[in-house]
Amino acid sequence: MPCFNWLLVATLLALAGSWNVVHADDKSERNCSTIPPYLPPTAVNTTLRLQALRETMRSLNVSAYIIPGTDAHLSEYIAQRDARMAYMTGFTGSAGTAVVTRNKAVLWTDSRYWVQAERQMDCNWELKRDVSISSITAWLIQEVTDPDGIAFDPFLLSIGTYESYRYNLSPANMVLKSLPDNMVDKIWIDRPPVPSDKLICLPDRIVDSLSSKISPFCHLRRHLVERSWRIKVEQIRSQMRDNPYKPTAVLLSALDETAWLFNMRGNDIPYNPFFYSYTLLTLDEIWLFVHIDRVTEEMKVYLNAGCNQTDCVQLIEYNQVRTMLKDYLTRPGVKVWIGTEYTNYALYELIISEEKSLTSDYSPVLTSKAVKDETEQRILRDAHVRDAVAVIQLLMWLERVVPEGKETEMTAAQFVNECRRKQNDSRGPSFETISASGPNAALAHYSPSNETSRKLTVTEMYLVDSGGQYLDGTTDITRTVHWGTPTDMQKEAFTRVLMGNIEISRTIFPSGTRGVYMEMLGRRALWEVGLNYGHGTGHGVGNYFGVHEWPVGFQSNNIPFREGMFTSIEPGYYKENDFGIRIEDVVVTVPAHNKYGNNYLTFETVSLVPYDKKLIDTSLMSPEQLQWLDTYYLTIRKLLGPELDRQGLTEEKEWMLKHTEPFQRSTAAGAVSSFSLTLTALATALIHNLL
Amino acid sequence: MPCFNWLLVATLLALAGSWNVVHADDKSERNCSTIPPYLPPTAVNTTLRLQALRETMRSLNVSAYIIPGTDAHLSEYIAQRDARMAYMTGFTGSAGTAVVTRNKAVLWTDSRYWVQAERQMDCNWELKRDVSISSITAWLIQEVTDPDGIAFDPFLLSIGTYESYRYNLSPANMVLKSLPDNMVDKIWIDRPPVPSDKLICLPDRIVDSLSSKISPFCHLRRHLVERSWRIKVEQIRSQMRDNPYKPTAVLLSALDETAWLFNMRGNDIPYNPFFYSYTLLTLDEIWLFVHIDRVTEEMKVYLNAGCNQTDCVQLIEYNQVRTMLKDYLTRPGVKVWIGTEYTNYALYELIISEEKSLTSDYSPVLTSKAVKDETEQRILRDAHVRDAVAVIQLLMWLERVVPEGKETEMTAAQFVNECRRKQNDSRGPSFETISASGPNAALAHYSPSNETSRKLTVTEMYLVDSGGQYLDGTTDITRTVHWGTPTDMQKEAFTRVLMGNIEISRTIFPSGTRGVYMEMLGRRALWEVGLNYGHGTGHGVGNYFGVHEWPVGFQSNNIPFREGMFTSIEPGYYKENDFGIRIEDVVVTVPAHNKYGNNYLTFETVSLVPYDKKLIDTSLMSPEQLQWLDTYYLTIRKLLGPELDRQGLTEEKEWMLKHTEPFQRSTAAGAVSSFSLTLTALATALIHNLL
Repeated sequence: MPCFNWLLVATLLALAGSWNVVHADDKSERNCSTIPPYLPPTAVNTTLRLQALRETMRSLNVSAYIIPGTDAHLSEYIAQRDARMAYMTGFTGSAGTAVVTRNKAVLWTDSRYWVQAERQMDCNWELKRDVSISSITAWLIQEVTDPDGIAFDPFLLSIGTYESYRYNLSPANMVLKSLPDNMVDKIWIDRPPVPSDKLICLPDRIVDSLSSKISPFCHLRRHLVERSWRIKVEQIRSQMRDNPYKPTAVLLSALDETAWLFNMRGNDIPYNPFFYSYTLLTLDEIWLFVHIDRVTEEMKVYLNAGCNQTDCVQLIEYNQVRTMLKDYLTRPGVKVWIGTEYTNYALYELIISEEKSLTSDYSPVLTSKAVKDETEQRILRDAHVRDAVAVIQLLMWLERVVPEGKETEMTAAQFVNECRRKQNDSRGPSFETISASGPNAALAHYSPSNETSRKLTVTEMYLVDSGGQYLDGTTDITRTVHWGTPTDMQKEAFTRVLMGNIEISRTIFPSGTRGVYMEMLGRRALWEVGLNYGHGTGHGVGNYFGVHEWPVGFQSNNIPFREGMFTSIEPGYYKENDFGIRIEDVVVTVPAHNKYGNNYLTFETVSLVPYDKKLIDTSLMSPEQLQWLDTYYLTIRKLLGPELDRQGLTEEKEWMLKHTEPFQRSTAAGAVSSFSLTLTALATALIHNLL
Repeated sequence: MPCFNWLLVATLLALAGSWNVVHADDKSERNCSTIPPYLPPTAVNTTLRLQALRETMRSLNVSAYIIPGTDAHLSEYIAQRDARMAYMTGFTGSAGTAVVTRNKAVLWTDSRYWVQAERQMDCNWELKRDVSISSITAWLIQEVTDPDGIAFDPFLLSIGTYESYRYNLSPANMVLKSLPDNMVDKIWIDRPPVPSDKLICLPDRIVDSLSSKISPFCHLRRHLVERSWRIKVEQIRSQMRDNPYKPTAVLLSALDETAWLFNMRGNDIPYNPFFYSYTLLTLDEIWLFVHIDRVTEEMKVYLNAGCNQTDCVQLIEYNQVRTMLKDYLTRPGVKVWIGTEYTNYALYELIISEEKSLTSDYSPVLTSKAVKDETEQRILRDAHVRDAVAVIQLLMWLERVVPEGKETEMTAAQFVNECRRKQNDSRGPSFETISASGPNAALAHYSPSNETSRKLTVTEMYLVDSGGQYLDGTTDITRTVHWGTPTDMQKEAFTRVLMGNIEISRTIFPSGTRGVYMEMLGRRALWEVGLNYGHGTGHGVGNYFGVHEWPVGFQSNNIPFREGMFTSIEPGYYKENDFGIRIEDVVVTVPAHNKYGNNYLTFETVSLVPYDKKLIDTSLMSPEQLQWLDTYYLTIRKLLGPELDRQGLTEEKEWMLKHTEPFQRSTAAGAVSSFSLTLTALATALIHNLL
């Protein structure tokens, strides 16, 4: 699934200059310029909520209130109880910021969501088609006369976001007022409670049957979980001791940080197996902030059986985190290590003094988690083999049934979700399936609903971006297909997107190279003819974690690639009101053996689904690209064939073999660069262990 | 000439892992481990200087004193009077930082300079083979017990550098003490004075004869200078008015900022036509800080004739800048716009309050100067035509005389300098010529001296990196040649460096793309076989300005490319103790017309010297790369031929024609990707106006 970093999107929009508003001419969008205004049935009446919020604002002397779309852990997906922006605006998109003043209410969101916002908001709200903090602050500077009247909930801004606001507002002599008691919560009638589900830990082994349940016993067996939580704690403490600034504690704020450290999972956030938590890990104590009533006796045993002083886990109520942190900071000589990208300002404002804090972009937990150990690599590859079966089942089924004219975006999404559910150790989709036909696919993040679902036909392209959660790993893959006759432009665009995917996948680079310095390889073939896309080119993927697992990937704030990192590669092209193309695979960084150097890496693709041959114009591609394709198809046959056999899926196996026929005959590559080509083929084959 | 950004170098060293210390086994380097220590004749005795400095430090309660290698304008090249680091250490390299404590003296510099430092320093000094500020601060934290005992001259640190020191030291509870009176200056006997040369302005026209003198009349004629200084002042003021934060003044601190704004030049810095200056440009006043006794009556007329209130230039003594700025800041409602990369901390510490400052990485003058107007583009291209004549004369001469065995690195450097001097409007070299044979070329920034100069032979590769200052432009070009039989490895490395140069040159990208996101194209062909290089890939170039004209180029702190920017492209490869390869051209960003998109750019090469055919292994190259080469060679013929004719250089013209024979026959490219190849050729030819 593509990710839209706000800053990146802003840059890309500036670059591309071709990502325009998609307007539906029908009555699905509001029209506030008529009298009375026209509101579609999907719009939410926010009048009373705004009235209530403004009353609260008045009582607290607040002129403008910022309502970000995230939660206290700066999560990408949030629980319903944290959907404050959606509650206030009606708009349920995953990215945006709302601001309410005494007489105005404005939502900022990016191009993916403009249509959705026009469908969901009533005329109390103005839509700003921009995503940059500077656009929000420029508006605030113009609208707010009261220099200390702008308030925010410090739990909902990362340190970096807060700093951006501050940086932009302070030249206008405006300051932000931190109000830790959220004002939307005060007026939110029927706000959903914290779920009562018990927390779980990763099972001792993955049960090899469809009826697998998570084992209540959290003991470690080396063949499935390589590092117990105690080993991980020791690894992080060792990084603390090695740090020249001698931090005495690490504060973990992102939900996957605590989940990773303790090998625990929960169910608080849709699609993400996380639970509300913070951790303060000191050199001799472990404070785990959770809703304690959700911790079973077994879990307490898991966390504390046979512990000594320094590896006993002290369970502390989730909402005590500020109080306890404040307490800790009164101890002499303490210094808390925090990752600024995922720590909220509510915690940071307690430790803002430079003597008491050590900051890095990411906590040592996030950077450690980014590199998968051997077991994590193995099981994550395994999950992708089973996941490919589900996607191939979808593609094969669609090939057969679409000409009959009865299937829709919705039924296709349901089908693939069902195929995944049948795979071993499935834990549901890893995000809402993007199943998009024709013009709907030009909206890169579109998911079908009853109102919008198109019938699938042989005259439209179809894009399906989906992924699964499995106990052993998280998957994410996009394929774009055409069941009829694609146009030349569709073939050219698809081929160039594929060339971009291949150029990144096959590139060799020194270990420690940042993805952002290579991601233009994903765009270059498109740029050559003046095409581009407006989203990021890839994001990390985890072991039964978030489908966007930062800080791995190709964005400017991602960490350098080292061996053992998993990322998606997903260039695309979107033609407004016409079609959308994206080709997404998950890859892992592996050593690249070469002639002169050491410590070089390349990518190995672990997603195992062939591309639609009908859309590939091989005349545009270089011999090296075709060679890469053929090697990849050999890998699919080698890894997926036995799994299809194991599952007794004969028809699927035939389909797979047919769709992985080689593109090149052995003589085709002779004419040009034969020497380098042979070398490349040799190296690629070596990497894939095919020789 | 390649540029070593400190941060970049640190990253690259980490990446490459193969940039090792070059040790000479002879007696040219000091040996401090023997008793008594061995010092080569090139070492400088610093005992008395250190003694004197430490006395001053003691009297001011300073435990450690930081001595950066730059001047108050953060210049890359500095005048002798600013060479404080060199005076204290003996080391004359262009990059480094010295720190003196009560009992230790340490120099940090990068790999280019390790040998030179070992040759020039005595045993009072320890060499740290690192360049990062974090390495300096880690050492300070370890060595200095007194938390406020570290002092620095705030004129010699940029805001960014100061912030890095502060960021690293504050977690250790250490603060930096700002001492604007430089302590080295206090004890520097015979410190050179400010030069007395009069300042000049760009001439009204470039005189087309060898005896051209700078005209004393600075009137504008549109065909050579498009924008008078008054137009430029108005353009900058208009940017101030348009800025939402409403700055009331722009402060210019870098020497090329003031020189550009007023179309003036000086002679204070070697190789760079700059003069000591600051400017405070407000909406209604212009304060020019210079040494007033260097301003002629004519110049005063140029600056003030017929001026109104707001465009009269008030001349103020250079050393009054802090006093006057402090004064200005007492006025109500003022806000000073500064570029943090080139403003020293001595000025910034006066305006540090957020209400009174508006910061951006670069001042509006630097970002405006980065985009050349039509005239600047035209005359800068012209300068490169004449410059190519000089380089071709060198290469032709060397081809003839090297086999005779009498020429050296030194005589070759002198020859090319002399060839340039004979070209119209020459103003000397733009940096010290790098003329390096065999292993000397593996030191990327080596310049020959009497002690090190090697004889040129047919058994070694030779690298020459040189450039000229001309009234119309600054040039910079590197060619690497072999007069005998290169090894396979040399051919492969050269070809891959060339492929890197071509891949960047021919790439098409959206206007607004940052160079740093494309620079891996310069390394990719090398990475494929495990090779790399440890310097940047390109830097801006100006119109009779610095040879490294930031913020244009391929480094991470460079601004996005727009049409009309000039940059070098200069990948390389260096094999320790063996040979060095660099291929450097200057290019300009031009519109790329393509099938679907608007607002795309590509590069057009304005350096016009063919590459050594003997070193090119065409079997490694793609048809597109060969096509690019042939198109480039056609351009050389088209642009350089007439100039060689004009100068009556028949032999040189023959040499040029022989060395620009096409690589491809018309049929060669047919086999693969013929469609895209034809398109590329067509586009390239269109760009170069060849059709």
